[in-house]
Amino acid sequence: MDTMNPIGVFDSGVGGLTVASEIMKQLPNERIIYFGDTARVPYGNKSQKTIIKYSKQIVNFLLEKKVKAIVIACNTASALALDEIKAQVSVPVIGVVEPGAKAAASVTKNNNIGIIGTKGTISSGIYQHLLSKSNPEVSVYGKACPLFVPLVEEGWINDPITFDVARRYLDDFMELDIDTLVLGCTHYPLLRETIDAVLEKRVNLVNPAFETAKTLGQVLVSKGLFSHKLSVNHEFYVSDGVDHFNAFANGILPHYLKDAKEINIDDYSDVISGEMI
Amino acid sequence: MDTMNPIGVFDSGVGGLTVASEIMKQLPNERIIYFGDTARVPYGNKSQKTIIKYSKQIVNFLLEKKVKAIVIACNTASALALDEIKAQVSVPVIGVVEPGAKAAASVTKNNNIGIIGTKGTISSGIYQHLLSKSNPEVSVYGKACPLFVPLVEEGWINDPITFDVARRYLDDFMELDIDTLVLGCTHYPLLRETIDAVLEKRVNLVNPAFETAKTLGQVLVSKGLFSHKLSVNHEFYVSDGVDHFNAFANGILPHYLKDAKEINIDDYSDVISGEMI
Repeated sequence: MDTMNPIGVFDSGVGGLTVASEIMKQLPNERIIYFGDTARVPYGNKSQKTIIKYSKQIVNFLLEKKVKAIVIACNTASALALDEIKAQVSVPVIGVVEPGAKAAASVTKNNNIGIIGTKGTISSGIYQHLLSKSNPEVSVYGKACPLFVPLVEEGWINDPITFDVARRYLDDFMELDIDTLVLGCTHYPLLRETIDAVLEKRVNLVNPAFETAKTLGQVLVSKGLFSHKLSVNHEFYVSDGVDHFNAFANGILPHYLKDAKEINIDDYSDVISGEMI
Repeated sequence: MDTMNPIGVFDSGVGGLTVASEIMKQLPNERIIYFGDTARVPYGNKSQKTIIKYSKQIVNFLLEKKVKAIVIACNTASALALDEIKAQVSVPVIGVVEPGAKAAASVTKNNNIGIIGTKGTISSGIYQHLLSKSNPEVSVYGKACPLFVPLVEEGWINDPITFDVARRYLDDFMELDIDTLVLGCTHYPLLRETIDAVLEKRVNLVNPAFETAKTLGQVLVSKGLFSHKLSVNHEFYVSDGVDHFNAFANGILPHYLKDAKEINIDDYSDVISGEMI
């Protein structure tokens, strides 16, 4: 495997761009092939079976692009499909959940940690599982916040209504005396200020996007896959709505993006056929 | 075609159950085959090309079930795919948009009509087009309300936050002096009370679900397809998440539903192959 091969990054839609953006900042030599499944977004309320099927189709697309590593930049897909994907491909596969959980475990002082995410992520119990494994002393409280994604996509970022919704969702955490909160959905870092204000700036907010880029760097170095030469021809693909994606992407990414391409993800098999690289 | 054959009703998810429910009330002899595309919900932000493809796959599924008529119980799919579907199948196809538009045109006194719906429905301009066609004197104002569906699905129906969101979306209508508002998305009738309160009970609210069931009855009679014998074995199919669907359905339907079935809609072609009936 050549170190110049790209990193595959995928998400249910635009949210994973916060992860792609962190990778660009922390690992500027790496080239990214991004896929956003905008035709089938959101993943948050879908069943594990469906998430695994969609993820496998996307992995087949990325393997065709000869990626040297895959980042599942979606909490729901990381929670529900990572193990299955990892078992079936030979390149390293990194989800956003484990790096976020590790950071939360190392940052907490009072061992009371909160997790917010989609219904799928929270009810999977994956953060709770990983955190308890890393530190049995830890108490973990999960809360699904299904309105946060549509509020972000509506652009109501610093907005009194979003503040009220956040207060409704996060009130319980104040009583539970958490000192650390994992932003367990890729859209949520965009609400960081509002969440911080609701929690009266008393809680450490963990952004799994940042932690995931850090983990990716470590994995690339340890596997001898780290690129030492600049290669910035990132490629962006979506399953629907190129214009909306471009607009959102240019609000988030450090580089200007003008040419996301649309592909038909239904054309890809949901059976990973081994080495396509 | 036998009058005992069922009516096919489809939607992007659970919202179309408000239409199915109206059909059950107004046409109790008719048997319904309902399909909710819960794996690919929502349709509201997707492109026309994708909506047409998904709709054709569903129509192929319904034709296999030998339906005698098809109701597109989704405003977005009615706005974007009705003409294409109508041109390709021989059974009657009814969308929710035209009946809603007709009712609004006949109810308005001051010719100022508002439409609320998803981004897809509003930006398609279909309501505006149909209303202007039926009455060139009419002024039509459209407003996309993307947070209404997630608010309903969160169960925040009579809720101060939902009231604030509704006020934000609907404020302009007050200044525009509308006397009629079309609830142009199948979830919105569930917010009828909140919307009515925000508009100070001064505006006629048109529910296309009610009008569509009425139109369906007229079409069945005119085509000799009206059933004169009771047949209540309705069938419900979804593309994902049977349990969530059952729970939502039982909050809406006049009959208790316990056995929605999951099918793989990706298995169906997006080419309508003519007579499958």
